[in-house]
Amino acid sequence: MNEIRIGIVTVSDRASQGVYQDQGGPAIIQYFQEVLNCVWEPVARLIADDQPTIEATIAELCDVAQCCLVVTTGGTGPAPRDVTPEATRAVIHKELAGFGEQMRAISLLKVPTAILSRQTAGVRGQSLVINLPGKPRAIAECLDAVMPAVPYCIDLIGGPFLTTRPERIAAFRPKPA
Amino acid sequence: MNEIRIGIVTVSDRASQGVYQDQGGPAIIQYFQEVLNCVWEPVARLIADDQPTIEATIAELCDVAQCCLVVTTGGTGPAPRDVTPEATRAVIHKELAGFGEQMRAISLLKVPTAILSRQTAGVRGQSLVINLPGKPRAIAECLDAVMPAVPYCIDLIGGPFLTTRPERIAAFRPKPA
Amino acid sequence: MNEIRIGIVTVSDRASQGVYQDQGGPAIIQYFQEVLNCVWEPVARLIADDQPTIEATIAELCDVAQCCLVVTTGGTGPAPRDVTPEATRAVIHKELAGFGEQMRAISLLKVPTAILSRQTAGVRGQSLVINLPGKPRAIAECLDAVMPAVPYCIDLIGGPFLTTRPERIAAFRPKPA
Repeated sequence: MNEIRIGIVTVSDRASQGVYQDQGGPAIIQYFQEVLNCVWEPVARLIADDQPTIEATIAELCDVAQCCLVVTTGGTGPAPRDVTPEATRAVIHKELAGFGEQMRAISLLKVPTAILSRQTAGVRGQSLVINLPGKPRAIAECLDAVMPAVPYCIDLIGGPFLTTRPERIAAFRPKPA
Repeated sequence: MNEIRIGIVTVSDRASQGVYQDQGGPAIIQYFQEVLNCVWEPVARLIADDQPTIEATIAELCDVAQCCLVVTTGGTGPAPRDVTPEATRAVIHKELAGFGEQMRAISLLKVPTAILSRQTAGVRGQSLVINLPGKPRAIAECLDAVMPAVPYCIDLIGGPFLTTRPERIAAFRPKPA
Repeated sequence: MNEIRIGIVTVSDRASQGVYQDQGGPAIIQYFQEVLNCVWEPVARLIADDQPTIEATIAELCDVAQCCLVVTTGGTGPAPRDVTPEATRAVIHKELAGFGEQMRAISLLKVPTAILSRQTAGVRGQSLVINLPGKPRAIAECLDAVMPAVPYCIDLIGGPFLTTRPERIAAFRPKPA
């Protein structure tokens, strides 16, 4: 049995302290409920903007919880407490620069401040890790920009076979040459 | 009083030796005179394409002169003496890859050699550092591509409140979620 | 006499073991035969997806064979054996991020999985190194996206003067300021 688990990491000092409610994590769960048509299970975490904690959480979701996909929300901007990209780079084995480029390009059609986002993505073992913005309204926008490539990426790194609702996201798998 | 100082660093062996006149520095000063409608003060430097000198100059403008914004012109190409991006990366604490991506994308609409530019940007303490090309005619083009996001970036890193002439550049500050 | 040599490196475990025939290398040779109208000589290599071997091959083609341009095909994806970008970064002196950005942007118009490509480019001494995808049908597409800037880049790093068939690719050399 090859269960599909998706790690969802909300990175926010204030949400993790209960100052306000986490909105990013639930927005991501709702997104995958709408988009995936395979059976999957969320593994959610809510942590502070602390680099060692973010690193340990991503690594645990990849290595122990065996999530084939780990998405983070928050901590990608230029402010001093924004350290999610640094933490991500510290624990991935291969960086996939195209994810950040494409998410910024799509966000840029909406807001010129998209260039301030430092979000990236990469592979750790058999898991794909993707940074998303903190604002709930930008999460679906960014995921839509990269989601067609996610199932094939997970195939390539030896993960389970993800399927999407084609009317929502057309997962693309190239035909063998 | 929170004075707005902008560091302007012309990086050019020949201009710094007096072989020809610095055109990039004055083009940047003119740009901000046209675009900003707050009171600001330029702090200009003219230096050689020498990595330790560029590093020390950017650091001094951020830390001692307390410029909230430092822009460089020159030294971003592939030639052996082009070392401005290396120097910038050595002194920034966070790289903002979206600036380079967007400036190259905009320049690419004009010239296919835009892909040769290695310009980047990043944050050092409470200062934003941006590399611009050396050619005066490309400076306004690149600044126009990123300027709408600059005032909000400086807000986020704890700098002063910059305002622009809206008919020239519409500074974008997202509304709180 | 300043001969123009172009290094062509096929990186593929299976092609290098004879499991199937190298298609990428010949596709690249055909591309330059169509596009260049100067005299040039290919220097072809077929190697496994092994990082030290890729590094040594690129370095040898730049330093010993004195190729002004070295292009690789294969090994740029997210799979465990894909290590061409890592090998490339280990031997170049300056990375040219704009090449990867532009090749991904162009490929993205065709397939959403273009964001999975980690291809990059850079300068080693007087040689330009460019990663291309492994699939033969994507090679011309990616080379077309960057080729107009290649001759001028080689000028800037002190290499020979390349010329192209203008009806196929218009090499761009900016006029002095």
